[in-house]
Amino acid sequence: MDVNVKTEFLAKNAREAAEREDLIIVIDALRCCSTIVTALANGAKAIIPVKTLREAYKIRAMNSDYLLAGERGGVKPRGFDLGNSPLEYTRERVRGKTIVLTTTSGTTALALSKDSKHVFIGSFLNAKAVAEKAFEIASAEHMDISIVQSGTKGKFSLEDFICAGAIISRMPQKHIEMSDSALASLLAFKHAETDLCATVMKSSHSRKLIELGFKKDIEFSCRLDLFQITPIYREGKIVKGT
Amino acid sequence: MDVNVKTEFLAKNAREAAEREDLIIVIDALRCCSTIVTALANGAKAIIPVKTLREAYKIRAMNSDYLLAGERGGVKPRGFDLGNSPLEYTRERVRGKTIVLTTTSGTTALALSKDSKHVFIGSFLNAKAVAEKAFEIASAEHMDISIVQSGTKGKFSLEDFICAGAIISRMPQKHIEMSDSALASLLAFKHAETDLCATVMKSSHSRKLIELGFKKDIEFSCRLDLFQITPIYREGKIVKGT
Repeated sequence: MDVNVKTEFLAKNAREAAEREDLIIVIDALRCCSTIVTALANGAKAIIPVKTLREAYKIRAMNSDYLLAGERGGVKPRGFDLGNSPLEYTRERVRGKTIVLTTTSGTTALALSKDSKHVFIGSFLNAKAVAEKAFEIASAEHMDISIVQSGTKGKFSLEDFICAGAIISRMPQKHIEMSDSALASLLAFKHAETDLCATVMKSSHSRKLIELGFKKDIEFSCRLDLFQITPIYREGKIVKGT
Repeated sequence: MDVNVKTEFLAKNAREAAEREDLIIVIDALRCCSTIVTALANGAKAIIPVKTLREAYKIRAMNSDYLLAGERGGVKPRGFDLGNSPLEYTRERVRGKTIVLTTTSGTTALALSKDSKHVFIGSFLNAKAVAEKAFEIASAEHMDISIVQSGTKGKFSLEDFICAGAIISRMPQKHIEMSDSALASLLAFKHAETDLCATVMKSSHSRKLIELGFKKDIEFSCRLDLFQITPIYREGKIVKGT
């Protein structure tokens, strides 16, 4: 039986996807999910995503060996060890560490997905890995897949839409049934693919990141299939999947 | 100064576009807007879009020479002269006639746009004409353009998304500033362009229309730039623009 694949355009839609009991792939390509994927690929033990700075400080107060990480307005908050730039998450900095991460959009989608049985983290960096793992599980457990784009400040974002298409492109095309939104993202990815980074840089959030000096983060985040890992979000923590 | 171009994914978003005082292009490629464009190209005098069957019957009761047209569930309602198939709107049937039209999604977007200064009707059939006229006016009057996709039963529809991209592709690219959603639709159109009709036929609404026997309507509605007209919606009526 074919697996139904839908994409949702906004973080808040994660709630409906969870209510439908879909397998969820959360995307926030710039930069939360690219950061999570990179951190785990470089040996971080776990990521604890939280919505507020207050929660982040509180968890660290109880666990002095945890790293505090994230952004507000794109920038690293006061007293944090790491910002939201995947390039900061080197093996030297993160190996064996538990990281408390708070970002604006990505952590919202995660919080709303938390009651789902299977929640994965997707980005360009691990498009193939997450696509294959999600398809395998959805197929075995007769679930639908919802790819939830985090968007930017509650709005549709081009980079997450294209990233959804990238992930879908790496599923077995003959065995999936795409919703209109899933098909649309696949078409956009296919056109963008030949010059992915240049296209992603046209998005409004990219342009803001470039202004803030984070152009290299965008270039890195666009490296398709760089890592073969599928981060899983379960019981409040994100860990590297098997 | 560049013209800002946004696309909205759902008929209900026409309300926000109207509140922003944007120039609005309403799209319902399958089939309401394609029908309107065809009717006017074939000499209809005016189209009066209404939301309910009751309104349609009432207007006709007062104007026995008007034609009653439209659909419910894709099919022509009892006592109607015409359905919602553009192919029915031949010169012989519609020349000089005023047509009262009620459809499910397209007329909703129109109703919510009605207070805007400029509301145009867009489809693949008149993509170039509506793009050029909208750009010209928005540029002269310093307005933003919102392309409002009617969608299907309140949901995102692939054909309207691709159609939005088709219209944007016919605006002067160097003089427009696209929102992320506008860029996304343009990318999807560019990939779909080489095999437009086959791609449109993958949408969920297309598949339903094919089941109902309306495949020829989809083929016709995908004929890009067939008509050089820009229907205008003003004071409750749609007429052929100059």
